[in-house]
Amino acid sequence: MNLINSCSGYKSANLLGTKSNEGIENVAVFSSVTHIGSNPPMLGFFCRPTTVTRHTYDNIKNTGFYTINHIHDAILEDAHHTSAKYDSDISEFDKTQLSSEYKQEFHAPFVKSAPIQLAMEFVEEYHIKANGTLLVIGKIVGLHINDELLEADGFINLSKGKVAAINGLDGYAISPSTTRFKYQRPK
Amino acid sequence: MNLINSCSGYKSANLLGTKSNEGIENVAVFSSVTHIGSNPPMLGFFCRPTTVTRHTYDNIKNTGFYTINHIHDAILEDAHHTSAKYDSDISEFDKTQLSSEYKQEFHAPFVKSAPIQLAMEFVEEYHIKANGTLLVIGKIVGLHINDELLEADGFINLSKGKVAAINGLDGYAISPSTTRFKYQRPK
Repeated sequence: MNLINSCSGYKSANLLGTKSNEGIENVAVFSSVTHIGSNPPMLGFFCRPTTVTRHTYDNIKNTGFYTINHIHDAILEDAHHTSAKYDSDISEFDKTQLSSEYKQEFHAPFVKSAPIQLAMEFVEEYHIKANGTLLVIGKIVGLHINDELLEADGFINLSKGKVAAINGLDGYAISPSTTRFKYQRPK
Repeated sequence: MNLINSCSGYKSANLLGTKSNEGIENVAVFSSVTHIGSNPPMLGFFCRPTTVTRHTYDNIKNTGFYTINHIHDAILEDAHHTSAKYDSDISEFDKTQLSSEYKQEFHAPFVKSAPIQLAMEFVEEYHIKANGTLLVIGKIVGLHINDELLEADGFINLSKGKVAAINGLDGYAISPSTTRFKYQRPK
């Protein structure tokens, strides 16, 4: 498990926030959020509906909305704790120091203090035949970024927000800086 | 483009190596390789067959095989240069200091000196209706890891290999260390 989960390289470190139709909030760590396209702006993530990620998936399917919040230096331990298997009537916000916040009447809760917060709307899903996982695709409908991270050309400097990357199932890495290169043309 | 490409968090930094049936090698940078499942061990990546990634995709479909190699400190600039649009009869190995190497008669070339090298076999693909990209899924059939990165429980410590993560389209970040947490149970 450790070997195969860490062999693909660094993974994004995100907390997905959802709220059931009954009003119960849920927040869970995901490491599979992936850029799918810029126009329209879309992201995907993989989940296995038989595991702890089931509550997140159910809430997304039932309400159509979720948030993606970046895990950073100050919340590593609480973020990782959301991987524990709580019942669906318990909110991980109540079991950690993580706080929810709401913006512009968006249905799903954001994670307060996250340097980047995305409001997402469900678009479509694909059943991966090879192993029974699901690819869930959503459209970015809102984007809240800490000003300090944003550079003049639109680049979000993740290192300035002490944003984490995930290594395997339980490793969190934070880079102190980022090296940027120019657009490449053939030599 | 910069904004949407950097808003999802850190991405894996990989070079995909392929070889056409005519024997022309290709190597290209990808930031969308994602863990899909451990048993069987499978990884996916997204590509848009109309861009520079077309040669990689064509070679995978025509031969069934490819390699995934981790981008690290020493090869950042050459790795990024593989994003330039070369014609299909030109190998990026000839235009950079990157060297190919072959192992155990596997069809596709590995990138020499990469601390982690994966031999991959094509499994299936999904056409993403929402924006015309493709999700390509492959099975890990070989795994070559620099001994120094491997910990006793199978965890591959990417920071020990100075493995990079990608931020946006052109940013590369390297973390000096990794913090690991225990398996979490409800409090």
